[in-house]
Amino acid sequence: MKGKKIDRAMMDLYAAKVKNWGKWGPKDELGTVNYITPQDIIQAAHLVKKGKVFSLAIPFGSDGPQFGDKGRINPVKTMIATGTDAISGRQDAIRIRYADDMVTMPTQSATHWDALGHIFFEERNGKGERKVYMWNGYSPENVNCSGCEKCGIQNYKDKMVGRGILLDMARYKGVESMAPGEGITGEDLDNCAKKSNVKVKRGDFVLLRTGQLGKCLKSGQWAQYAAGDAPGLEFETITWLHDKEVAAISSDTWGVEVRPNRSEEFHQPWHWLAIPMLGIAMGEMFHLDELAEDCAKDGVYEFLLIAPVIPFTNGAGSPVNPLAIK
Amino acid sequence: MKGKKIDRAMMDLYAAKVKNWGKWGPKDELGTVNYITPQDIIQAAHLVKKGKVFSLAIPFGSDGPQFGDKGRINPVKTMIATGTDAISGRQDAIRIRYADDMVTMPTQSATHWDALGHIFFEERNGKGERKVYMWNGYSPENVNCSGCEKCGIQNYKDKMVGRGILLDMARYKGVESMAPGEGITGEDLDNCAKKSNVKVKRGDFVLLRTGQLGKCLKSGQWAQYAAGDAPGLEFETITWLHDKEVAAISSDTWGVEVRPNRSEEFHQPWHWLAIPMLGIAMGEMFHLDELAEDCAKDGVYEFLLIAPVIPFTNGAGSPVNPLAIK
Amino acid sequence: MKGKKIDRAMMDLYAAKVKNWGKWGPKDELGTVNYITPQDIIQAAHLVKKGKVFSLAIPFGSDGPQFGDKGRINPVKTMIATGTDAISGRQDAIRIRYADDMVTMPTQSATHWDALGHIFFEERNGKGERKVYMWNGYSPENVNCSGCEKCGIQNYKDKMVGRGILLDMARYKGVESMAPGEGITGEDLDNCAKKSNVKVKRGDFVLLRTGQLGKCLKSGQWAQYAAGDAPGLEFETITWLHDKEVAAISSDTWGVEVRPNRSEEFHQPWHWLAIPMLGIAMGEMFHLDELAEDCAKDGVYEFLLIAPVIPFTNGAGSPVNPLAIK
Amino acid sequence: MKGKKIDRAMMDLYAAKVKNWGKWGPKDELGTVNYITPQDIIQAAHLVKKGKVFSLAIPFGSDGPQFGDKGRINPVKTMIATGTDAISGRQDAIRIRYADDMVTMPTQSATHWDALGHIFFEERNGKGERKVYMWNGYSPENVNCSGCEKCGIQNYKDKMVGRGILLDMARYKGVESMAPGEGITGEDLDNCAKKSNVKVKRGDFVLLRTGQLGKCLKSGQWAQYAAGDAPGLEFETITWLHDKEVAAISSDTWGVEVRPNRSEEFHQPWHWLAIPMLGIAMGEMFHLDELAEDCAKDGVYEFLLIAPVIPFTNGAGSPVNPLAIK
Repeated sequence: MKGKKIDRAMMDLYAAKVKNWGKWGPKDELGTVNYITPQDIIQAAHLVKKGKVFSLAIPFGSDGPQFGDKGRINPVKTMIATGTDAISGRQDAIRIRYADDMVTMPTQSATHWDALGHIFFEERNGKGERKVYMWNGYSPENVNCSGCEKCGIQNYKDKMVGRGILLDMARYKGVESMAPGEGITGEDLDNCAKKSNVKVKRGDFVLLRTGQLGKCLKSGQWAQYAAGDAPGLEFETITWLHDKEVAAISSDTWGVEVRPNRSEEFHQPWHWLAIPMLGIAMGEMFHLDELAEDCAKDGVYEFLLIAPVIPFTNGAGSPVNPLAIK
Repeated sequence: MKGKKIDRAMMDLYAAKVKNWGKWGPKDELGTVNYITPQDIIQAAHLVKKGKVFSLAIPFGSDGPQFGDKGRINPVKTMIATGTDAISGRQDAIRIRYADDMVTMPTQSATHWDALGHIFFEERNGKGERKVYMWNGYSPENVNCSGCEKCGIQNYKDKMVGRGILLDMARYKGVESMAPGEGITGEDLDNCAKKSNVKVKRGDFVLLRTGQLGKCLKSGQWAQYAAGDAPGLEFETITWLHDKEVAAISSDTWGVEVRPNRSEEFHQPWHWLAIPMLGIAMGEMFHLDELAEDCAKDGVYEFLLIAPVIPFTNGAGSPVNPLAIK
Repeated sequence: MKGKKIDRAMMDLYAAKVKNWGKWGPKDELGTVNYITPQDIIQAAHLVKKGKVFSLAIPFGSDGPQFGDKGRINPVKTMIATGTDAISGRQDAIRIRYADDMVTMPTQSATHWDALGHIFFEERNGKGERKVYMWNGYSPENVNCSGCEKCGIQNYKDKMVGRGILLDMARYKGVESMAPGEGITGEDLDNCAKKSNVKVKRGDFVLLRTGQLGKCLKSGQWAQYAAGDAPGLEFETITWLHDKEVAAISSDTWGVEVRPNRSEEFHQPWHWLAIPMLGIAMGEMFHLDELAEDCAKDGVYEFLLIAPVIPFTNGAGSPVNPLAIK
Repeated sequence: MKGKKIDRAMMDLYAAKVKNWGKWGPKDELGTVNYITPQDIIQAAHLVKKGKVFSLAIPFGSDGPQFGDKGRINPVKTMIATGTDAISGRQDAIRIRYADDMVTMPTQSATHWDALGHIFFEERNGKGERKVYMWNGYSPENVNCSGCEKCGIQNYKDKMVGRGILLDMARYKGVESMAPGEGITGEDLDNCAKKSNVKVKRGDFVLLRTGQLGKCLKSGQWAQYAAGDAPGLEFETITWLHDKEVAAISSDTWGVEVRPNRSEEFHQPWHWLAIPMLGIAMGEMFHLDELAEDCAKDGVYEFLLIAPVIPFTNGAGSPVNPLAIK
């Protein structure tokens, strides 16, 4: 499968297979999180049996994985007020002593959700004419300098709650970390789920662990983590996600899908479909090691997953601190 | 009570009453969220009975309440890539079509948690000499241009989960919004809880609704919302919070406590104790109207509250999208 | 003239009159600053007779004229290192004591030059079809999220040197400040120049003083200064600028041209031509009062003008501290 | 000399030699730029004989030398409005077509002037007690989260004009670039000046070329340029600068002085004196190659130097595009 080149014909074939446009009406801006029902949320809440909370975010600081590629920098935090100022007496006149800070960051600099307005699909007709679409058929004109006027991240503001399941592929394969370029198939996902005694259900938040993030954090070296080669989902898994009707897919890698690209024509070909065609909620750089350790120990791979977006108006993404609660 | 001026003697008296330093050891950086037990989390999760999620964040956009006071601006979002660029063909060379954005904001610009390193207490000894402290007795030197090297917001990363209760003071008083300057006492809080059939417990997240935020949003006018007069907690409620051993207090106002200050000597006198002495987790600008509506309807004022911080390394605060789940 | 409405026919007529495309070759990205010759620079330098330097910039701070309209905020400056940190001993480990800061600002937040890529001209053909152009006929596709790939501000990096002349219209009219809505015609400019004993020449930097900026600074009230009504150039002056072959036009207002617009169809109609058609360098919010005082005193309205852009790669504008030297 | 370690005694000795505090009164915030007289400016202007302008700034972009050390990033530019938006029709409602951008950057990210509030001197008395000072004896408490309340960059706003002279040490030594760690002595400076037929005078802007910047730009590799080893001034040259009474010293390196430090006790020991003791204006990352080429050709190493700061209120530095005009 790895040798297979994804060309335009294959792209169009899979696009047709997974296209969810119109499924939730012509005005939908939510996509697959529509699968989550109140009943799902109630059941997910009842998975909380130990009262144990796992934070799945990496530290948001200058030591993050970004290196400036295409404008993506790590969060830059600067000060507006400090304790040293307070000590110096410089705050006496205002009769309170405090510290404040400011942050500048791409919304996708560390652990984050993509908005559905983040990726577009480009169609070519017989004459080679281009047409670009976003989720549900909206025009990308809606994503301009006012931000995502359609499919902005704020649409998710009360949606990121449900059952989470961990598919710990690294542990399943018996490695600390899968290798860059190592692909994961739908069969792999099924086998891993089976071994974990968990059945993938409609409306699930699927958390996929390759081990790559933890390896970087342990070594203190991000190397090619951001925008480089990575283990991850093969292109064809897009149908697995479609058929399982999961709400979201997140991984501990920079971009969920396998890299290098299995294509010369498309960069990140799986992305071409996942967001604009399938309409799936995608999470990146989820730190899953501590959770995985616990799941391995108690054998329970399902939990309450709560990962609220910061509702930036028309945002193309949002930082997130996802919580898995068991 | 409103007429009573809070002077140094009164400040010191209440400081002594509520001081929690050392309670969780000399190295604690968490404060009252230590009250939350795994059992509390399990019980809170079982409060989810309707599968209904309420987002308590205001929109994070340029139309927020800030007006630049002391460097606090509203979030500024700008673009790194757009759909209009994608359409123009400007992204052809990279073989993917996408949008990305960047945000610059004070960590406390909209709905947020304060870090324990956000506010300091200044002591004066008999000779009028100053000494400034932060939570648990740490020196504010720890809050410098490297951020909160002690008591930074990242300490809370897996802590903001528990039982939330809504104290809807506006509804209790039968008004759309309490008036600026209108104080709330411990007795008020008790009466409101009683009427709501909810008992305040150790480890609770107390959400206090005055109606001020909703009124501003409805009118489209922030007026004096940020840094101006507001309804809120009287200074003396600090003992109520201390005695109830709640984990957190949040309100729908800019600063939780009543304004104008009941003091000439201290600006935001309640803040002087709440964070550095009591060590309480404080949330501001929580949007509670939709939740309140639902609570009034079903008579249930308790719920699962999940409000994860974005773990900015050494942050003085964090934007948050708190979710109340019933 | 004020009553005359600028409609499409009038716009097209004046566009044809002042269009400089191709004048300096099909690849030109400089426009009218091409008029400046080495000889002009030598002569301008020899205008320095008193050794007196006037800074024409307003303070770059949070107290500036911007109020957030269309994303334009005042410069936000935050700290990376401070003297209070140095005193506290927090910098001991690095064996140097220092302060550093960071600034976030629109390139056009205070005194600035526009890049030629800042404004576009939209043409309509007989069928009502739109076509948008930038200076010299370039496509605005060149101004995307990579910035102004054509006509970026860095092109000006060694160009902003020449003879400056002050046309002090406020003083000419005998007022502290011209009124919002008060237009300036070509005839006004000629008369003012004549009275100032200065002859407008090819390659000049024309500084136009209305008094509006000084009035705001004195009162401490920006009121409608940014994006509001202002005194300034009438639309028809575009031919005056064209015919005089000046290098640049700058004023002490937010947008040089008179406001409110003399048009219902076009917002800032003079801008439609000045930058994309005429290709003139435009400066805004130049603070001219101190210079004007001196010119009135010694009767000399010409000087060396040096106003270097900060060469932001592909910038749409640049902050500037223009210096007039007499 | 390179072997000599700069210890506390040597630091204090040289501090005493070059200390200019009080020289221009107890309230001075300008330091050595006070040396520049109107006569100097007139004479400098008359050096303009060819009408040729040299921009000495490097490009301000994401490809700059910074790598995030101590919060120093390269300028980050993002978009508020674009040409692609204009084409899409998204700006039709506002009846103008335009582009706008925003920049976030440390004030010292690329070519810049240091403010006198940028570096402090720490004194130790006999008991080892510390006292920290800034220029003219001011307390560093004045440099807090409000910025440089003393000695901010805006003080320079009309001061950066005078005679510039180029000391092209690389060419003098016959190399493309001096080597990292290679020191320059006062004698070197004298010899270079002599060979260049230029006499260093009071009030001069001395531009020192090592070739390091050009070499990096040519190779496209910044390597250790920022915060790494560099050719530059030996510590003892501080007396040369003091005795010559120059207004400013700038170089084509990141920090003017030689690196690695000739000291274990002090990081950048020359900085300890240059700014807080001597009060000299310091410019860094001046790109001098094109100017140097011209000087070598016509044998003229003096010129009009104009390098206006952007007057950030209380700024610790300022980006600058210095112009040398011959």
